[in-house]
Amino acid sequence: MKAEVYVTLKNGILDPQGKAVQQSLHHLGYAAVKDVRLGKYIEIELSPMPLDEAKRQVAEMCRKLLANTVIENFRFEIKE
Amino acid sequence: MKAEVYVTLKNGILDPQGKAVQQSLHHLGYAAVKDVRLGKYIEIELSPMPLDEAKRQVAEMCRKLLANTVIENFRFEIKE
Repeated sequence: MKAEVYVTLKNGILDPQGKAVQQSLHHLGYAAVKDVRLGKYIEIELSPMPLDEAKRQVAEMCRKLLANTVIENFRFEIKE
Repeated sequence: MKAEVYVTLKNGILDPQGKAVQQSLHHLGYAAVKDVRLGKYIEIELSPMPLDEAKRQVAEMCRKLLANTVIENFRFEIKE
C-alpha cells in the first residue's frame, strides 16, 4: 500500500522560495500567475497493514519527521 | 483559479533524499516503510481564464521552469 503525503506552509507563513518561482514565471511572461506556494509531496511505500493502522502510523510520521507542524500543515491519502 | 502541480522523480532515478527520510523513519521504528520518494507540490494561484488556456499555460510552466523533464515527471490539476 502507498501513502501520498502533502506538506504545505501554513497560511501567513512567508514563502520566499515560492515568491522566487512566481517572479521567474512573470519574467517568462506568465502574467496570470498571482501567487505561488511551494510544498512537499512524499510517496511512502508501506508493507500491507489495516487501513486504520496505516493512517495512524502515517499521521505520526508526519508529526514526528515529515512536517514541521509549527509552520506547516500536512494531509495524506492512503492507497491500496 | 488554482493549479496544483506535482513534480516527482522518474522511475529509476536515484532519490538520496528519499532514502535519507526512509532511514530516519526506520530509526524512529516504522519498520513497515519500504520506500520513500520525495517530490514537489506547487500551488499556483491564477487569474481567471478559460480552462483550456489554463491547462496549456501550466503545462508550459512545468516544462520550462517547474520540472526538469530529463529526470522528473509532472502532473497537475486545475481547480476553479
